Amino acid sequence: MSLVIVGSVAFDTIETPLGRRERIVGGSGTYCSLAASFFTRPRIVAVVGRDFPRKTLAFLRSRRVDLGGLKVKAGKTFHWEGRYESDLNRRTTVRTELNVFADFRPEVPAAYSRARIVYLANLNPEHHDLILRQFRRPDLVAMDTIRLWIDTKREDLLRELGRVDIFFANDEEARLITGEANLVAAGRALLRMGPSLAVVKKGEHGALVFGPNDTFGVLAHPCERVVDPTGAGDSFAGGFLGYLDRVPRRTPKEVHRAAVYGTVLASFTIEDFGIARFLTLDSGQVEGRYRQFRKLSSF
Amino acid sequence: MSLVIVGSVAFDTIETPLGRRERIVGGSGTYCSLAASFFTRPRIVAVVGRDFPRKTLAFLRSRRVDLGGLKVKAGKTFHWEGRYESDLNRRTTVRTELNVFADFRPEVPAAYSRARIVYLANLNPEHHDLILRQFRRPDLVAMDTIRLWIDTKREDLLRELGRVDIFFANDEEARLITGEANLVAAGRALLRMGPSLAVVKKGEHGALVFGPNDTFGVLAHPCERVVDPTGAGDSFAGGFLGYLDRVPRRTPKEVHRAAVYGTVLASFTIEDFGIARFLTLDSGQVEGRYRQFRKLSSF
Repeated sequence: MSLVIVGSVAFDTIETPLGRRERIVGGSGTYCSLAASFFTRPRIVAVVGRDFPRKTLAFLRSRRVDLGGLKVKAGKTFHWEGRYESDLNRRTTVRTELNVFADFRPEVPAAYSRARIVYLANLNPEHHDLILRQFRRPDLVAMDTIRLWIDTKREDLLRELGRVDIFFANDEEARLITGEANLVAAGRALLRMGPSLAVVKKGEHGALVFGPNDTFGVLAHPCERVVDPTGAGDSFAGGFLGYLDRVPRRTPKEVHRAAVYGTVLASFTIEDFGIARFLTLDSGQVEGRYRQFRKLSSF
Repeated sequence: MSLVIVGSVAFDTIETPLGRRERIVGGSGTYCSLAASFFTRPRIVAVVGRDFPRKTLAFLRSRRVDLGGLKVKAGKTFHWEGRYESDLNRRTTVRTELNVFADFRPEVPAAYSRARIVYLANLNPEHHDLILRQFRRPDLVAMDTIRLWIDTKREDLLRELGRVDIFFANDEEARLITGEANLVAAGRALLRMGPSLAVVKKGEHGALVFGPNDTFGVLAHPCERVVDPTGAGDSFAGGFLGYLDRVPRRTPKEVHRAAVYGTVLASFTIEDFGIARFLTLDSGQVEGRYRQFRKLSSF
């Protein structure tokens, strides 16, 4: 049982219709590992600057996130600033300061090299090879991407799609990569590009999971008051992969449950700014919402 | 067991990325009654012109749709023309020729007056009262609306919301009526306006059903090749209400099943232009997709 997450640990400045927060903790690796921590002991490979709060590192440790692969370097932490439109479905990047992330060449600690699951969270696809070479045959490699790599590193991205097992994309990314407007067609086209599982995340509408013999959907937990959607997709991936890391056999039914846990974790993340909701979230609440979800989905 | 549908039986000219069809049969009442015919014997109150094809009337009868309330008047049948954008989520009305529908004052046959369920499909809310006075205390009154009435008859619409039991709206309509961008907030706001059940249809993303103690979602059946989305919402309502007309008790679980049947019927409608898919659809296919849906939703 081991999940290694390679991604960003960062500062975010976020504006949503419900408020603005300056330089709060965010990053794909942070959200993903916090979500996964409800199922497994995630290990994180990332880099931060000396300005990163010790308090947050202590919190991550308290959630049993293994920080053995987190480098603290001289300089400032990656900082992203974004603004959400009133319907929360669209966001604009106001500013990106890569800082110490600019020349991040992930070094995987030897202790991590036998990981069962490796997750490459929104990384430059050119760097995947360098990272994956540091692992000894993981059971399962998963990746996510962002619009930037679709626009600027398309060939690298398509090559990487051919070697991963699970690909996560949001609806816009799935359409851009495949050229298919219909999301079901897009999901199936993604499968033909290589992965054995393609997960298309649809925000408030949930997610579709495409497997070789199986397509299924999972709803989003109905959430009346979305405070900040940042990190929802990363939390989904964290819940999904964390759960898969815990189960002995990845049957279609377990994959389905993983997707439900993904949507449950994402539904908590968006209830507050940044990672604030995780500060008080406990396993009882996660299991409670999972049970509620099951009840509301049965017919 | 009796469901009366008051709506339009019409000609549609439709352009989608997959083709164009001129003056094919459509209309909210047509789609709704065909979908409902898999569960009950729907009765329809509508008007057509002398140009309406006898063949279609014969087909409706063969599906056990009771046409006792369908008037054939001198003049031409209502004709709507619309065009869908490439992603099929947006459509533009090119032309609306009301023809005999212009002064349609629905007359309910005496034999229909003891209906258990009455469905007012996209009608001018000013006319609801005239129609409902012709029924003797139906068990359940349901309505749908269109953007036109939200824009031009808002007060009448809000008054009618206060007296119906079930309100169907698509996501755009729910947002416009309530002023809430969040669909969960919008659905709950609709409930506060009167109905005991508010159903928010989300096209390819399925539907949300809001009850007094219960919110649940139903996915859309994953459909890779959408030929023509026209009538999907009306078919959803038809499957939903047709199923509810069949069950002895409308428990939350039965309401949930009704929504699944709604989504199943809608998923067939969009596989071909107009009502073409209904020409060959049989109960076995409907039940088969329902079972498949149950399988793909369980976890």
